[in-house]
Amino acid sequence: MISEKEIKERIGKLPIPGVDRTIDGLNLIRDVRINNGKADITIASTGLHDMIRVWIKGALSNTVMHCEGITDAEVNFIDIKPADINKINKIIVVMSGKGGVGKSLVAGLSAIALRRQGFEVGILDADITGPSIPKMFNVTQNPTGTDSGIFPVFSKTGIEIMSANLLLADESTPIMWRGPMIASIINQFWETVVWGRLDYLIIDLPPGTADAPMTVLQNLPVAGIIIVFGPQDLTAMVVRKAVNMAKHMNKPILGAVENMSYLYVPEIDRKIEIFGKSKARTTAKSFGVPLLAQIPIDPSLVRLCDKGEIENYKSEILVKYGKRLKLVVTKAQPVPSESIPPREHA
Amino acid sequence: MISEKEIKERIGKLPIPGVDRTIDGLNLIRDVRINNGKADITIASTGLHDMIRVWIKGALSNTVMHCEGITDAEVNFIDIKPADINKINKIIVVMSGKGGVGKSLVAGLSAIALRRQGFEVGILDADITGPSIPKMFNVTQNPTGTDSGIFPVFSKTGIEIMSANLLLADESTPIMWRGPMIASIINQFWETVVWGRLDYLIIDLPPGTADAPMTVLQNLPVAGIIIVFGPQDLTAMVVRKAVNMAKHMNKPILGAVENMSYLYVPEIDRKIEIFGKSKARTTAKSFGVPLLAQIPIDPSLVRLCDKGEIENYKSEILVKYGKRLKLVVTKAQPVPSESIPPREHA
Repeated sequence: MISEKEIKERIGKLPIPGVDRTIDGLNLIRDVRINNGKADITIASTGLHDMIRVWIKGALSNTVMHCEGITDAEVNFIDIKPADINKINKIIVVMSGKGGVGKSLVAGLSAIALRRQGFEVGILDADITGPSIPKMFNVTQNPTGTDSGIFPVFSKTGIEIMSANLLLADESTPIMWRGPMIASIINQFWETVVWGRLDYLIIDLPPGTADAPMTVLQNLPVAGIIIVFGPQDLTAMVVRKAVNMAKHMNKPILGAVENMSYLYVPEIDRKIEIFGKSKARTTAKSFGVPLLAQIPIDPSLVRLCDKGEIENYKSEILVKYGKRLKLVVTKAQPVPSESIPPREHA
Repeated sequence: MISEKEIKERIGKLPIPGVDRTIDGLNLIRDVRINNGKADITIASTGLHDMIRVWIKGALSNTVMHCEGITDAEVNFIDIKPADINKINKIIVVMSGKGGVGKSLVAGLSAIALRRQGFEVGILDADITGPSIPKMFNVTQNPTGTDSGIFPVFSKTGIEIMSANLLLADESTPIMWRGPMIASIINQFWETVVWGRLDYLIIDLPPGTADAPMTVLQNLPVAGIIIVFGPQDLTAMVVRKAVNMAKHMNKPILGAVENMSYLYVPEIDRKIEIFGKSKARTTAKSFGVPLLAQIPIDPSLVRLCDKGEIENYKSEILVKYGKRLKLVVTKAQPVPSESIPPREHA
C-alpha cells in the first residue's frame, strides 16, 4: 500500500503543460490523503487556466490510479495567493546606482552560473523603464496566468523571468510611469507571480536610488546585494551612493563586481584598460566589501547578449564567479524584513 | 548727455562678485531713468546677498557718476522671480532611456562645443540620483543664493551648472527620493535658479522614461532633444523607448549621437568595434532622426572626465560636432509648452 508521501513524490514530478516546471517545482501540492483506497488530492491552481486544470486532473488521477492499493482518486483545486505558494530561498539584488555598468549582465551571468550548478533560479527585472533581461535571454512570450496569479516566462535553460517588457506588445513602447506606478508594478512582480520553489531569485535593479531600489530594499526579504561598478572614477562616485543606501537600510552587501575592467587584444597580446586603470581592489575595499569578480569587455559576450544567447556563454570567468557567488550567498544571512524601519528622505 | 540706453550698456558690463557673470549677463537691469541729471536705476537683486547688493550699489553709482551729465544716482533693488529674469534662448535635452551610454558626456561635450563658439551655456543636471556633471567639470562649491533665488555654479570656462550633487556636503550621499520629490527638485532647478541670459541650456536626463524625463518634457519649453545610443542592439532597443516617448509627447528630436562607436588602437592602426559592429546610420534612420556624430571610446577623454578636466579636451570630433550641433539647434522650432497636453499612462 502506497503512502501519502510517496504519492506526493510521484505526482510532484509531473510537468505542467505550457509551464517549464513540475507540479512540485511550483509547489502546487497542498494536500494528499488516502482513505479506504481513495486518494483525495488538493492542488493550488493559482494562475492555471481551465484547460490546464483539466489536464492536471487527468494526469494526476491516472498516475494515482496506477499506485498500489488506490482504487479511486479525486483532485480538487484551490486558488490561493502566490505568496503562499512561493518558496524562495534567497533573494539576491544586483545594484549599482550607475547606469550602463552591466547590472543586467551581472544579473544574467549570476543566474546562469547558479543554474549551471543545478539550482532553480529566477530573475525579477525591476528595471521597469529600461529592461534588458528579456532581450539577453531572447524571451518574448507574454506571461500566462489568471486573476489569481501569473507565471514567469522560461528561458532556454529553464530560468524563470519576469520583466515589464514581457507585458508589452512592442518592446520599444516606452513605459512612461511616475514613481508610484513603478513601485506598484514591482510589488506585483513579487506578490502576484507564481515563482514556485526557487533556490535563488535574482533582482535586476535600474540605475539610481529612487523608487525601484527603495521599493525592493524596503518591501522584499533581500538576502544580499551584489554591487556592480566600472573602472571610471566617475562611476565609482555614483556607485558609492548605492553602497551607502544599502548600508543605510541595513541590507547585507555580498560583494562587488567590476565590469568592463579591460579589453584583451589578441593581436598585441595585451590587456587595454580603456576605461582607465583598474582600481578594483581599492574601490571594493573603500566600499568595505569583498571583490567578487573582474569581468573584462568580451566582444563575444556582447554579441551573445545582442543575439539573445547569453546562456551559450562559455568562459572560465563565469565558472569561477559562479563558485564564488554560491559561497558568498550561502554565508549571507537574510535580514528579517520587519527589523528594517522604512526610512525615506523627504 | 548720456542716454539711458548707454547707461544700461555701461553698467551691464560690470561683473558681479562671486558670480562669474556680468549684471547684464544675468539680465538684472530692470529700469534706468534719467531725470534732471539724476539716474534712477532699478536692479533685480534676486539671489544676491546683502554684501553683494552693497557692492553693486557702490559700483553702479560710481560708474554712473562718471557719465557725462549725471550729477546724482540712486540704485534700487527689487526681488523678482528668477522666471522673470531668465532669458533662455534654447533648451536642449540630452536623453537616452538607457544608462551608461554617455548622456552626461554628450551633454558636457555639447556645452563645451557651444561655449567655445562664444555662446552663454548652462547645464541643468536632471539626473538627481546619479549626477555625473559636477565631477566631469570639477565643480564642488555649494550654490549661493537667497530665498528669492539661487545661482548656478560656474565651470572653469564659465559654463553655468546646477546639479543635486552640488547641494550635498558629501558627493557619495545617496539621494533616496521617490518620484514626486525628483519631479519637485527638477522644477526647482528650473524655477528658482537664476540662470540669467543663456543662449543654450543643456539638460542632462537620467536613464529611463519615468519621473525626471516626464517632468522635463512636460514642464519645460524644450527646443530639441539629442538622443544618445550605443552600438549594442540591446542598447538600441531601450533607446527606442526614449525616442518613442519624445515623439509621443510631440517634442522635436534634433538628432542622435552614437557613443562608444569604436576604440582606436594605435599599435595595430585599427579601429576595434568592441561593442559590436556599428550600425549608427541604420539605427538613427530607424529612429527617424539624423545622425549627428559618432564618438569613439577615447581613453584620454575618460581620463579627463575622471580628473574633472573635460573642458581641456581637444579633438577634431568635438569641433565638428559643435558646428553640426549649432546648425541643427538653429533649425529647431521650440514647441510652445501650452500646446502639449500632459499625457501620462497610469
